[in-house]
Amino acid sequence: MTAEEAAELVLPGELLGVSGFTLAGYPKTVPEALAKRGLRLKAAGEDFRVSVFSGASTGDELDGSLSRAGLIDWRMPYQSNASLRAQINEGRVRYLDVHLGMMGPMVREGVLPKPTLAIVEAVAVTPEGRVYLSSSGGNSATFLTLADRIILEINGVYGDAFIGFHDTFLPGLPPLARPIPISNPADRVGQEYVQIDPKKIIAVVHTERADSVARFTEPDEVSQTIAGHILDFIRHEQKKGRLPEGLPYQSGVGNVANAVLAAMAHDPLQGMVNLYTEVIQEAVFSLLEAGKLGVASGTALTFSPAAQEIFKHNVRSWKHRFVIRQQEVSNHAEVIRRLGVISMNTALECDIFGNVNSSHVSGTKIMNGIGGSADFARNCYLGFFMTPSTAKNGAVSSIVPLVSHVDHTEHDTQVFVTERGIADLRGKSPEEKARLIIENCAHPNFKDLLNDYLFEGLKESKEHHLPVSLKNAFDVHLKFKETGKMRES
Amino acid sequence: MTAEEAAELVLPGELLGVSGFTLAGYPKTVPEALAKRGLRLKAAGEDFRVSVFSGASTGDELDGSLSRAGLIDWRMPYQSNASLRAQINEGRVRYLDVHLGMMGPMVREGVLPKPTLAIVEAVAVTPEGRVYLSSSGGNSATFLTLADRIILEINGVYGDAFIGFHDTFLPGLPPLARPIPISNPADRVGQEYVQIDPKKIIAVVHTERADSVARFTEPDEVSQTIAGHILDFIRHEQKKGRLPEGLPYQSGVGNVANAVLAAMAHDPLQGMVNLYTEVIQEAVFSLLEAGKLGVASGTALTFSPAAQEIFKHNVRSWKHRFVIRQQEVSNHAEVIRRLGVISMNTALECDIFGNVNSSHVSGTKIMNGIGGSADFARNCYLGFFMTPSTAKNGAVSSIVPLVSHVDHTEHDTQVFVTERGIADLRGKSPEEKARLIIENCAHPNFKDLLNDYLFEGLKESKEHHLPVSLKNAFDVHLKFKETGKMRES
Repeated sequence: MTAEEAAELVLPGELLGVSGFTLAGYPKTVPEALAKRGLRLKAAGEDFRVSVFSGASTGDELDGSLSRAGLIDWRMPYQSNASLRAQINEGRVRYLDVHLGMMGPMVREGVLPKPTLAIVEAVAVTPEGRVYLSSSGGNSATFLTLADRIILEINGVYGDAFIGFHDTFLPGLPPLARPIPISNPADRVGQEYVQIDPKKIIAVVHTERADSVARFTEPDEVSQTIAGHILDFIRHEQKKGRLPEGLPYQSGVGNVANAVLAAMAHDPLQGMVNLYTEVIQEAVFSLLEAGKLGVASGTALTFSPAAQEIFKHNVRSWKHRFVIRQQEVSNHAEVIRRLGVISMNTALECDIFGNVNSSHVSGTKIMNGIGGSADFARNCYLGFFMTPSTAKNGAVSSIVPLVSHVDHTEHDTQVFVTERGIADLRGKSPEEKARLIIENCAHPNFKDLLNDYLFEGLKESKEHHLPVSLKNAFDVHLKFKETGKMRES
Repeated sequence: MTAEEAAELVLPGELLGVSGFTLAGYPKTVPEALAKRGLRLKAAGEDFRVSVFSGASTGDELDGSLSRAGLIDWRMPYQSNASLRAQINEGRVRYLDVHLGMMGPMVREGVLPKPTLAIVEAVAVTPEGRVYLSSSGGNSATFLTLADRIILEINGVYGDAFIGFHDTFLPGLPPLARPIPISNPADRVGQEYVQIDPKKIIAVVHTERADSVARFTEPDEVSQTIAGHILDFIRHEQKKGRLPEGLPYQSGVGNVANAVLAAMAHDPLQGMVNLYTEVIQEAVFSLLEAGKLGVASGTALTFSPAAQEIFKHNVRSWKHRFVIRQQEVSNHAEVIRRLGVISMNTALECDIFGNVNSSHVSGTKIMNGIGGSADFARNCYLGFFMTPSTAKNGAVSSIVPLVSHVDHTEHDTQVFVTERGIADLRGKSPEEKARLIIENCAHPNFKDLLNDYLFEGLKESKEHHLPVSLKNAFDVHLKFKETGKMRES
């Protein structure tokens, strides 16, 4: 069937469950055709909107074209698309960001409605209903199982590369849940495919379109410095006997995460590295080339066009080094805690009391969402939140008196890292944390301002445990809103 | 040995690992004797301080007398004692409240220092080093295993009542951790005792002192109304097929939790009830009497003096209905999620965006600590945060524009309940949540104030996702600080 024909099968108002996680393995041509159909219907005066549940962020072909066509009513649990973000902030799309590891169970338990139509990218489907997924696991098994109707986009660009990559396993639901039998990042506990009822397939569309991932940029100096601090700290903890060798890593998306993996690849002291993570980025290639990758377990392979080529050429020899899971397994509290994951995530801003904002600029404007950061931060063995100490060419301090939105509380953060240094908050009292964060992580241009706030807090909250000054808590944010800077230069 | 002799064995500056969880099973006479010794030493001009790690809160014999004697340097992870609280707020005791389920692993992993001396209440010890704990599990197994020296307080007041109650199991640490084999609240996976090296025992002290738990008060009307809302909601969710029958309950300490269990006991529609909780309170007696208690699994049995008597008389026939675990198992993310616990915890204040403050009055003054509330809220199947809609005779609204301290983020809360009603926040966008919380949960005297704030936030954050007004966020808290009221009457 053509994508246009398939798009005609979408009903107004229905809830789509789509594949895709961080720009990997999302359907491409059907959403584009759906957007065009929606625009035609709108021009004809018809109201046509749908809701979209996904794994995580999808490409512009999906979130971009559907939102620009004004078709999205409700969207969960994560996105990173400029057009969609604008519509969410304008209040034209209902949006809720939730822990990525909890989305699948919430749908299966019936807490959230079940998708009526699954639109899933795959590399193959058999007559018996075995669906072989492409570059991401996401929530695809949940959506394919629950939806009454299924549209498959069979993407030929990957060939059969991804067959054998996936380990599809969905934990049972209470009261019938049993232990998830993963005790090593390499453990395979499910099937290579998702079993569906083939009668539910209402369309199969063939495409030849790669995931639209941006070009890879080499880590800049700040990222490399942060990565260096993290590696030094890990070595130090291992020497002190507080961190066993060989624990797997989770690394958030972006430059710093890439820099850490690259630094490990080049460090002669570094042994084999295992990943138990969400998104596997092309930084794993440097580990592979250095012969240091044990196994990389994740829910998505997010590769730039150049990396996709390298990957396709090497896929056969690399296959046994990768496991792609459903996101509720890659991000499951039970497994993350059991494996003792070392977690590295990016913060938008951190405060001197140990709270982290991952999602809302100035407390109001959503960037992407909380994603899986809390799945890992809350359950990891050792957790880093990292950020350059300033943003907007130095006008903004990433270390603030009080974060304008709390995604991770002081109870769930362990180590803060900026290019200025590292603050190990574990076992510290509130005042100790504040002094350490200001001293080690803040940019010199903002240290006196932060120390003044702490001084004010200590005075104002006299005889109280937490030296917060509610009166001045958001002054730097309000100043930024007014002037574009957090302080006079 | 006498308590006084045992207290002489405590070294200045050392770290004590003590038994005790929510006023159950803490050592009594040795801490009192230690306090007296400390006062003598101080009078003689000597500096004598110790640090104290516990399960959770202990009685006045321990936290009260040691703090009043000025002996406590560092205290973790929870407390509820008036004298100690005052010293923490005055900055005279270093204090950090952490998730109760994470304290044991942090010590065993070496992230926190290991106690040098364990002081643990037990009911018996054998020559082979089998220690039979009393009314709580707490972190006692961890402290007894790690400390080089052990003082046991053998409490005769319980007789052998608690033998057979405990299931002592400590999960392995990464990279050697394996699944915790609990799939039912009744599952026993460890031993009835803690095995220690008997050579480490430096003192055994006999006592006959009951846990000092306050008199039980019957739930008041507000608590009963909240309990009613919760039960109605659970029935509704079960009818809708969103909540399987028979999931176990966790209930926080206090009146509302008692009221919920009492209401279940008296409800003819209610079947068997299982608890997978932290603290088992005497409200279970009403379930036992009604023949409706399946099993109660927790880490502490916190009973008032009257309840202790009832318990002692019935202990033999009730024994198979109780399991007392170490707190890292009762509060373990893995088990809570697998069992599908229905969680009920008390909030100090809730905000209209879904955040909860459990620990700090006006953002600065600590009450007790976060306790285990997040262990359960983050991993439960269905989670309630409950609070009367006002406090201080109506001068304070428990529903505020923005909480002054975040212990549970909007991502980790599901349902808010006050005596005014219930707000189911699952799957709602920020503005929907705000309208629902104001409409259903706020007290009528504060609704217009909250609606005004939301209106202001919507205006100020125009074109932004989260309608927060940073400018006015803490106005009600500042007003309260100035005038003792959140608004003019």
